[in-house]
Amino acid sequence: MNRVAVLGSTGSIGTQALSVIAANPRRLKAALLTCRNRVDMLRGQIDRYRPQGVVVERREDAAELRREYPGLHVFFGSEGMLEAIGTMEFDVMLNALVGISGLAPTLAGIRRGGIRIALANKETLVTAGRLVTQGAAAAGVPVIPVDSEHSAIFQCLSGNRDNPIRRIILTASGGPFRGFSRARLAGVTASDALLHPQWRMGRKITIDSATMVNKGFEIIEAKWLYDLAPGRIDVAVHPQSIIHSLVEFEDGALLAQLSAPDMRIPISYAFSYPERWAADTRGLDLVGLQSLHFEAPSGEGKRSLDLAYRLLRESEEKGKDSGAVVFNGANEALVERFLGGRIPFLAIVDTLDELLARHESRALESAEDIAALDLEARAAVAQRFPE
Amino acid sequence: MNRVAVLGSTGSIGTQALSVIAANPRRLKAALLTCRNRVDMLRGQIDRYRPQGVVVERREDAAELRREYPGLHVFFGSEGMLEAIGTMEFDVMLNALVGISGLAPTLAGIRRGGIRIALANKETLVTAGRLVTQGAAAAGVPVIPVDSEHSAIFQCLSGNRDNPIRRIILTASGGPFRGFSRARLAGVTASDALLHPQWRMGRKITIDSATMVNKGFEIIEAKWLYDLAPGRIDVAVHPQSIIHSLVEFEDGALLAQLSAPDMRIPISYAFSYPERWAADTRGLDLVGLQSLHFEAPSGEGKRSLDLAYRLLRESEEKGKDSGAVVFNGANEALVERFLGGRIPFLAIVDTLDELLARHESRALESAEDIAALDLEARAAVAQRFPE
Repeated sequence: MNRVAVLGSTGSIGTQALSVIAANPRRLKAALLTCRNRVDMLRGQIDRYRPQGVVVERREDAAELRREYPGLHVFFGSEGMLEAIGTMEFDVMLNALVGISGLAPTLAGIRRGGIRIALANKETLVTAGRLVTQGAAAAGVPVIPVDSEHSAIFQCLSGNRDNPIRRIILTASGGPFRGFSRARLAGVTASDALLHPQWRMGRKITIDSATMVNKGFEIIEAKWLYDLAPGRIDVAVHPQSIIHSLVEFEDGALLAQLSAPDMRIPISYAFSYPERWAADTRGLDLVGLQSLHFEAPSGEGKRSLDLAYRLLRESEEKGKDSGAVVFNGANEALVERFLGGRIPFLAIVDTLDELLARHESRALESAEDIAALDLEARAAVAQRFPE
Repeated sequence: MNRVAVLGSTGSIGTQALSVIAANPRRLKAALLTCRNRVDMLRGQIDRYRPQGVVVERREDAAELRREYPGLHVFFGSEGMLEAIGTMEFDVMLNALVGISGLAPTLAGIRRGGIRIALANKETLVTAGRLVTQGAAAAGVPVIPVDSEHSAIFQCLSGNRDNPIRRIILTASGGPFRGFSRARLAGVTASDALLHPQWRMGRKITIDSATMVNKGFEIIEAKWLYDLAPGRIDVAVHPQSIIHSLVEFEDGALLAQLSAPDMRIPISYAFSYPERWAADTRGLDLVGLQSLHFEAPSGEGKRSLDLAYRLLRESEEKGKDSGAVVFNGANEALVERFLGGRIPFLAIVDTLDELLARHESRALESAEDIAALDLEARAAVAQRFPE
């Protein structure tokens, strides 16, 4: 029986993780659930999954939950989150938090040790890839990716751990604005962007998918997860999101992982690896699909990829990773403003481009250093686009 | 250093295997080469690869080679083949023989033991799947498939040996006559059939590809290699031959193996598994391809698949495997006649259909039993289409 801590249990990945747990009652048990503000939804999860502990954001919510659920360990705030990770009993920690707030919990999980981390929080690796991969390796904590793309690569590598990779091909849906000209993008709104053609996801990642900043992040994650030089990471736009990514090996063979889009598959694999557990998932009807389509990244979306490649080269050649923290922090602040209708769509990548061109990259010292730089990046956005 | 016996070294797979050996001089060494009649070509291979032994078909050729190459062990005929397999030193035996003549050498390799068998001779498993898989398992002789489709499945399973398979999808190019009506097929000739759109292969397998009997064989092979019920083996027509086959697991994830069509990749993998060796192979340009296409098997080709499924159900439900021997033996005799221009294209599957409808299936006792039944099937064809 694996006891699972689900960080971000009321989000898109979190709720799907709970459905995986519900489907595997003899293998998985929810041990710790966390949310920010959706406390009513959390109550429903407590009733159904009977965790030993929960974390919420606000002290008042924690106090209420303590009254309602005697015996439940209730923590609150970011300190409470770290305390829960350090003290509660569990075997697997699914980090499905959104944004850089997921970094400290990942590091706490590594410090704690003796667990597996199922990582859905991509900002962990984007902002602190070196720190996290080195720390996890030293602590013997396996980090299994939950992103559909990186899970695909992980699955392709499962029988090939010692075989050199010629390159990986990350597939990208291209998002809702694939093929849009800059002029057309100038007018798109948050609700346009939230209509993703293939995946139902959280709001933040859906916008990141529309700007393709998400794919830029994934390029950076791939570098850290699989220790790849930038030239070994390719991106192919594949609007149907059936092939989740591919690995080409040195012998010329490629392996690809495919499925109908369903995040329960990579979530379940992160729990079950190296096993696979039978699930009530739809088979893939290749013949019904008739064709799988591919195209080169182009237009505005490609700018986000180019930013990521530029950051990777700085990291690769000079060991300077700070740009990725700025990329991530500024993007979070910009997406928040775009979702609030306060800046136009194009301002997101335009501003990232400007800020990164101005940024003097340097090596990162510590988690505190990263947190400070993240705040600086947000401040730069705030200065440009005051509330 | 792996010493390799290449059975059928002058054929299409054999020559490509030698190019893999040439590309890996510190890993592979040709130890034994065999051919039937292309003795001049074999001379060139002896000069270049310096094997310890060779096998040819005719006594006269053997005598000449002995004079020309003092110190070379020269065997001849089918007895000589078995003696060479039993007595020469090698670590890997690539069986790239064509037709049921490959069965006795496979069995000899299993009896010998202490080697890996790289199996390109599909008739081995079609006619004697039970005998061969049970024998190989008992002797601890790994059988690695070289067929691009079964190699693809083997590669997809490399990190998933203990994970149950929901189904496999064998891809089929559909051959040169995909979409042809029966009326149009009535007039096709051997030279039409030999123009395969994707793969350059030997003549026999190219005709089998045109009738899709080859894919029927592969369905039967898959059953034996991967212990699959007929309902777990699907076929999708994929004319580009880029995805070589797929495995769908119980969790809903699929893995696929892809590459530009190049048999050196599965040959090399059969030698290198679980490693992969860097090779001068072309990368896959997914974006350049734009689309990968799939369609359901249909028309005349589908009849060959239906024959194979019917045989598999008899094997599965009643343990009676004899039909596959008839399928294979009669097909060899029919293809020979078609290649000689003596029967029309449609007579191949029409006759197979009739002979199998008449055949009373039974359990197979031994290799001798299989050989006798094979001769019977050929005799039935000869009776119908006298020389």
